[in-house]
Amino acid sequence: MSASIKAMIFDVFGTVVDWRTSVAGIVAPAFKDKSIDCDPLQFADYWRARYDPAMDRIRTGERGYIALDDIHLENLEQTLLHFGLNERFNDAEKATLNSAWEQLSPWPDVVDGLRQLKSKTIIAPCSNGSIALMTRLAKFGHLPWDCILGADIAQNYKPHPSVYQKCCEALRLQPQQVMMVACHNNDLKAARESGLATGFVVRPNEHGPKQSIDLHAESDWDIVAEDFADLGMKFNRL
Amino acid sequence: MSASIKAMIFDVFGTVVDWRTSVAGIVAPAFKDKSIDCDPLQFADYWRARYDPAMDRIRTGERGYIALDDIHLENLEQTLLHFGLNERFNDAEKATLNSAWEQLSPWPDVVDGLRQLKSKTIIAPCSNGSIALMTRLAKFGHLPWDCILGADIAQNYKPHPSVYQKCCEALRLQPQQVMMVACHNNDLKAARESGLATGFVVRPNEHGPKQSIDLHAESDWDIVAEDFADLGMKFNRL
Repeated sequence: MSASIKAMIFDVFGTVVDWRTSVAGIVAPAFKDKSIDCDPLQFADYWRARYDPAMDRIRTGERGYIALDDIHLENLEQTLLHFGLNERFNDAEKATLNSAWEQLSPWPDVVDGLRQLKSKTIIAPCSNGSIALMTRLAKFGHLPWDCILGADIAQNYKPHPSVYQKCCEALRLQPQQVMMVACHNNDLKAARESGLATGFVVRPNEHGPKQSIDLHAESDWDIVAEDFADLGMKFNRL
Repeated sequence: MSASIKAMIFDVFGTVVDWRTSVAGIVAPAFKDKSIDCDPLQFADYWRARYDPAMDRIRTGERGYIALDDIHLENLEQTLLHFGLNERFNDAEKATLNSAWEQLSPWPDVVDGLRQLKSKTIIAPCSNGSIALMTRLAKFGHLPWDCILGADIAQNYKPHPSVYQKCCEALRLQPQQVMMVACHNNDLKAARESGLATGFVVRPNEHGPKQSIDLHAESDWDIVAEDFADLGMKFNRL
């Protein structure tokens, strides 16, 4: 089967990068500078939790497409308000905080794993992040993508089927020639419904030590892997 | 000025890769296999000459956007007809010939030059080639792009202004923060009209030894360079 897979496309937030401790690590010194007493991990979790409801308004057509960079900034305002901190940051400082999403560290197995996979197939993010965000994140984390796909290409958000379909079309490949890789079962479920092959990589600490979801593969995905090195080995044996 | 430039976007056919001798080098053995007596360089020139008129129908709105891969295949049919060779190739063989455009060799100065520039700024193709074509070309030639921009992003063809504008928007940059690099004066003229910075790299052999156009910078482009190494040095001094 691996010979028939011509591209692997990847979820990024959670699967490729550790957004939670990265965002907290960037927010923490900004809080310290202003003597703000707020748990950076709780702040990161609250900010991220606003993500899906905001995209849902776009997926349902209630709101036109706007890039995730703008959604992150809107959600930052809500998060600052929730923690009673909105008056403590001016617009320039908020923009700086928002750029935390461009500075997320890859999990330790990612860069070597992607380099291995890149020698076999096309590799690209299929993230809800914009081309701009994914490009800056790749430069920050030295992610060796062949191209940047995802929400901007489809002008819609995963798991809307158009995102998976438009990414395959952009590569001029059939869905069955493309494998979606993610640590989220719902992302793979949607990709499979559009005809793509599927690879699950478990990320048990995406949401910290109390994570309760996506600890196991919830279906017979084509690959179920422990990390990107394991993904590469299992891809070669497909 | 180099500090204010956050991305460099590149013309590809001619500026980055030597399409003429590459296409001829791929067509030649296919002709030899069939004992066809046709000059591969003349064939490549004729095929490429159909390129601009075909795109023009899309730029003017006479025809909806289709990817360059499809235009290349249509133009291959015309080229084979012109040389009396259309009956000699079946559809699968034509598709194989058409994939010549995914196997174009970079000029010798390109890969090292791009690696240097990539350490300073975002680098991306802004070509009329599709995302699929540019991705495969990058894998073939080891072009270290940060992302793939160009015609597919705008659903239109250079030098239509929307292509330059949409590429800047995709990076969430202002036009003056982006430098267009090309060996074609008309490409730079259009980019400048949309507010981008401009870099000219001379490619005196793009069209072979009898080349008569684009042998010199025809305006005061922000950089005028001999090759990509020179481009990098002049970029650092801006």
